[in-house]
Amino acid sequence: MVKESAASGGLEWRINMQDGSSKVLVPERVPRTRVCGALQGFFMGFLFNLWGFILKAWNIGLNDPKKFIHCIKVGLALCLVSVFYYMRPLYRGVGGNAMWAVMTVVVVFEYNVGATLCKCVNRAIGTCLAGALGVGVHWIASQSGHRFEPIILQLSVFLLAAAATFSRFIPSVKARFDYGAMIFILTFSLVSVSGYRVEKLFELAHHRLSTIMIGTSICIITTMLFFPVWAGSELHNLIRNNMEKLADSLDGCLVDYFGNDANADNTKNEAPKKILLGSKCVLGSKATEESLANFARWEPAHGGFSFGHPWKEYLKVGASLRSCAYCIEALNGSINSDAKAPDVLKAHFSKFCLRLSSSSALVIKELSTVINTMKKSTKISLIVQEMNNAVEELQNALKSFSEQSTASLTVPKLEESDNGAGDTIASPALVQIVPLVTVSSLLMEIAARTEKIAEAVNSLANKAEFKVESDEIMKNQCNSRTQKF
Amino acid sequence: MVKESAASGGLEWRINMQDGSSKVLVPERVPRTRVCGALQGFFMGFLFNLWGFILKAWNIGLNDPKKFIHCIKVGLALCLVSVFYYMRPLYRGVGGNAMWAVMTVVVVFEYNVGATLCKCVNRAIGTCLAGALGVGVHWIASQSGHRFEPIILQLSVFLLAAAATFSRFIPSVKARFDYGAMIFILTFSLVSVSGYRVEKLFELAHHRLSTIMIGTSICIITTMLFFPVWAGSELHNLIRNNMEKLADSLDGCLVDYFGNDANADNTKNEAPKKILLGSKCVLGSKATEESLANFARWEPAHGGFSFGHPWKEYLKVGASLRSCAYCIEALNGSINSDAKAPDVLKAHFSKFCLRLSSSSALVIKELSTVINTMKKSTKISLIVQEMNNAVEELQNALKSFSEQSTASLTVPKLEESDNGAGDTIASPALVQIVPLVTVSSLLMEIAARTEKIAEAVNSLANKAEFKVESDEIMKNQCNSRTQKF
Repeated sequence: MVKESAASGGLEWRINMQDGSSKVLVPERVPRTRVCGALQGFFMGFLFNLWGFILKAWNIGLNDPKKFIHCIKVGLALCLVSVFYYMRPLYRGVGGNAMWAVMTVVVVFEYNVGATLCKCVNRAIGTCLAGALGVGVHWIASQSGHRFEPIILQLSVFLLAAAATFSRFIPSVKARFDYGAMIFILTFSLVSVSGYRVEKLFELAHHRLSTIMIGTSICIITTMLFFPVWAGSELHNLIRNNMEKLADSLDGCLVDYFGNDANADNTKNEAPKKILLGSKCVLGSKATEESLANFARWEPAHGGFSFGHPWKEYLKVGASLRSCAYCIEALNGSINSDAKAPDVLKAHFSKFCLRLSSSSALVIKELSTVINTMKKSTKISLIVQEMNNAVEELQNALKSFSEQSTASLTVPKLEESDNGAGDTIASPALVQIVPLVTVSSLLMEIAARTEKIAEAVNSLANKAEFKVESDEIMKNQCNSRTQKF
Repeated sequence: MVKESAASGGLEWRINMQDGSSKVLVPERVPRTRVCGALQGFFMGFLFNLWGFILKAWNIGLNDPKKFIHCIKVGLALCLVSVFYYMRPLYRGVGGNAMWAVMTVVVVFEYNVGATLCKCVNRAIGTCLAGALGVGVHWIASQSGHRFEPIILQLSVFLLAAAATFSRFIPSVKARFDYGAMIFILTFSLVSVSGYRVEKLFELAHHRLSTIMIGTSICIITTMLFFPVWAGSELHNLIRNNMEKLADSLDGCLVDYFGNDANADNTKNEAPKKILLGSKCVLGSKATEESLANFARWEPAHGGFSFGHPWKEYLKVGASLRSCAYCIEALNGSINSDAKAPDVLKAHFSKFCLRLSSSSALVIKELSTVINTMKKSTKISLIVQEMNNAVEELQNALKSFSEQSTASLTVPKLEESDNGAGDTIASPALVQIVPLVTVSSLLMEIAARTEKIAEAVNSLANKAEFKVESDEIMKNQCNSRTQKF
């Protein structure tokens, strides 16, 4: 028992001491060093964990320096609001009205401009509406005698709080006025529960509204003037990046399958993960897209985006991207499944499959360029046509292969089929071609869904009135021609 | 012009009056009725829209009565907190401490118990931590003379607000302590910006803490005692429902393809939508699952769930469900694509495909029963085995079909192949079989992913220590046997 406890670690040194009491000095020395060791180990472990946490946090910031800037902006806004109150004599500490300005800044300041504006507007509207209603209910209650006053107040709080809470479940209200409904409940309860007379309430309302205005205007100024992060631009970039990732993932998936099959054993486990990460990003960004589109509607014109920019179209593009990503995910699954096609067949089909996948990826990349430059592409119809040609070619390859194989089937050399790698493909069993047929038809489905992405981007380009890419080039060419004549 | 404007609607009646001044009575009468009509129309339209909105909102509540109950609970909690203050003499209106209790209730009360507890704990910890730090900084600042006092205060607000804001970007902090970080910033700014001396701050802190405690305890009591909505149960039910939807959608998808092809034209457009809705639910529930799992960790033991219930395992089950749903979505796409297999082939393969799809659906349904009853199934390994047999059978069918077709190919009756519907299947071109091969191999992929779901559910069952379903039955059987002997 003694040896066991000694071996199990420094924490159980007491047992060791009680049992080994016959030895005078040795047991005393051992526990001390052990306690020190254990403490040191614990301390080092804690420091190590803390260091790891800080390093991880630091990397989060380094990957997206806008996050560092946001933190500085929050600090700045808070300093501004407190400086504002240091300078004014009306400041009377936490209990007074100063706290409403500080609170507004802390609660309302969000990462992007749209979210901040949305919360500011919601806070202002909610406070005004609830304040007016509260004063009204207060007046009615005060007119109806001491008996009914608390009953009317309580009933109104109950009913309006329940109604406002329910409105937050309605999707259209939740998307725009969720925060406003909460502020409505808060303000109405505070006003109608308060013991003030109606005359004093007006003064209070005036003070509170002015402090909220100070808070919101400091927030709006800080968020819009110092390195603004626009929800609209974020959505725009997110969709563009997702498109590029999707194209890369589609490309990589097929190259991985057909291309480097010789050294497949080494890279097999790493490459698919990298590819999957790309399509996982697309698959998991629905919630982010929706919230960004909601916030973008509140933003004024910025960059190339006007106030009425059709942000909802981005959601449709996002949905079409995801629908394509589902197929790529399924394709990836069937590529990594156990059923393997013979190399001869793979070599025969690789040309057509790779052509189709790369032309689909090209379409997606061109569409991402359309979104990036906000200019309609003149090439896009050509590239889509090329993709459709690739689809047809793959279909023809399947067709001609089936004819070829029926022709070779009449030759009785069935046994040698696996070895034949010459000009004519020997007939394989149908089972062997199953994985290739699956890959081919999933690729065709991906091509069909890529066309849907093109339609969605086209609809976005029309509604957002993107210019035609080569308008200026064409004009220049026309000018140079007319100068020649 | 007069006729045009008259025809275009009642809003332009002024033009009509000015031009038709020669007629004495008729023009006067016409505008009046038009104005009335327009107003009536506008009013009716408004009422109609409002009625539609209310009806929609009412249906949201009817579909999930728990939402109505939540609204009543919010009203109740607010009434409780205000009654509490009506009865106490320390109440001094909005400016006093009463507002902190009201505010706590409004801000902290959430739909499910976990979210409410999470916010309560966050609010308490954030307030205490920031209060202590704020008092400390205040003391240091007050010791360092009039010159440095504001500088130290401002600097500390800036630094701590920036640091706390940054911590909200770290995923592990955001998942648990997002609200606490906000409350920390709020309290620290309020305390350090305030002009009170340190002695008065202690009194203030005591008051504020006690009011927050009153608010949080009213929230916790109301949310846990009156029809509690547990985040854990919600997550549990969500996963179970998603499983059932997935199984139905898989079943429906295949039945739709193979089954009623005769009357396909009528139902074609409706059935896939219904099927898609099921898998769309699964595909879109990632964010909900994650937030519910986050909140469920805060909840005490309830129903069949202990405090340390492995909620994270539900997320893994959810992820495996989505991975299966991707494949079903791709399958649905290729079923609805233009390429159609000939009916003869469909009839030949329908048996095998339907068997595989229904056995996969059966596995998923059995797994949903496991989750529903929280008891390990003894049948599950048998059903999974059956599904694997169905996979093998489908593979064999493809194999034997390829042999059969190679045999029939040697017969030179290639032209009649499409008409032959007898006992032996005539040889089709390879292209014709492409859709069927795709469906088959996607089904096999779905079966593979269904096994992954089974693994995830099994891991959940082990970690949550589900009992074996038929333990009691077995015991009963043993007892009856021993009684016989």
